[in-house]
Amino acid sequence: MEIKVMKNILGENDKIAEENRAMFREKNVTVVNLMGSPGSGKTTLLEKTLEKISGRISAAVIEGDLFTARDAERIERLGVPVVQINTAGGCHLDAAMVKRAAESLELEKIQLLIVENVGNLVCPAEFDVGENFKATVLSITEGDDKPLKYPLIFKESAVVLLNKIDLLPYTNFDLAAAREDLSTIHPNVEIIETSCTTGAGLDAWADWLAGVI
Amino acid sequence: MEIKVMKNILGENDKIAEENRAMFREKNVTVVNLMGSPGSGKTTLLEKTLEKISGRISAAVIEGDLFTARDAERIERLGVPVVQINTAGGCHLDAAMVKRAAESLELEKIQLLIVENVGNLVCPAEFDVGENFKATVLSITEGDDKPLKYPLIFKESAVVLLNKIDLLPYTNFDLAAAREDLSTIHPNVEIIETSCTTGAGLDAWADWLAGVI
Repeated sequence: MEIKVMKNILGENDKIAEENRAMFREKNVTVVNLMGSPGSGKTTLLEKTLEKISGRISAAVIEGDLFTARDAERIERLGVPVVQINTAGGCHLDAAMVKRAAESLELEKIQLLIVENVGNLVCPAEFDVGENFKATVLSITEGDDKPLKYPLIFKESAVVLLNKIDLLPYTNFDLAAAREDLSTIHPNVEIIETSCTTGAGLDAWADWLAGVI
Repeated sequence: MEIKVMKNILGENDKIAEENRAMFREKNVTVVNLMGSPGSGKTTLLEKTLEKISGRISAAVIEGDLFTARDAERIERLGVPVVQINTAGGCHLDAAMVKRAAESLELEKIQLLIVENVGNLVCPAEFDVGENFKATVLSITEGDDKPLKYPLIFKESAVVLLNKIDLLPYTNFDLAAAREDLSTIHPNVEIIETSCTTGAGLDAWADWLAGVI
């Protein structure tokens, strides 16, 4: 029974996601759905990304969180338009939430909309929000077994950011194994090693974004 | 509509969870539901814990994962009875899954059953599996803002393990702030700082477990 209900919810979600995609296409907005575990470093990466692309790409952000507006406040400080969605305990963003949030943005002024999803490697992967690309942040400290343990999110992502790469020497993360597993799950995935502490990979990531808008 | 469905699912789950609790009580088994983000270090901590309590507490493990049996294989190598639950993409364990898994264990030989949940800071907190205690692993590398961002799981947990404490010098994690936030969310929560690299806190955690069986 649970599965049937889930299918209905997903069907409804996909319909709204397609409406979102049409709305974004009409306004020439490219949408990236940024996902990853709690603490993988999504918000810090987003802050550094927005600084990096400032003046080059006009961006806006939709922030998904269970309760607080902490992440949105961090983005707002950078002078970037941001809308906070609080899911009130919900484990993912869905297309209807993103639709409501996007309607409050001036889309005609935006080239790139980054949707930071709820920190979760499972549920967000199942809900299309109308994005053009999914991007997943995997931090080195989470361990190299994560791609095989949570394959769907990596299979669906156009790009995987191996974040906190500066902490590699302090962990037993096997970079070659992780890259191999990612390539097995998703042969054409783009992999970028990033660190917000050293700045490594942020130019490559900004270039990737500039290439898709 | 989604909320109504969710309530029905939770109501059914709670009923089975109570049946599980009665079954465990009858067999004198204490059950700990071990939760945390992907990569917070749950399985490594579990391995070290089982080594630590070996000969002192007779334990068994139920491993929850989306697809692989990797974690169960790691536990099996220690000679500890283990059952793998694959959720096939599902984001949490529920009481029915744990019931089926527990029925395949020789419960009369077990004092402590540790259920390692799916790596996820959101959904597992909502599903009682019939445990006596919830324990949440929060790794230092995830950031000190996680208790306020994911309050339910910390509110429900009898004990929080601040794991990978050896990485504290390489992060901007504010230990005092995290402890204060945890105490605000859950005034009586037990907080233990652990590291599987240095062995810090593992005795305190083993003593905590010995105290609840």
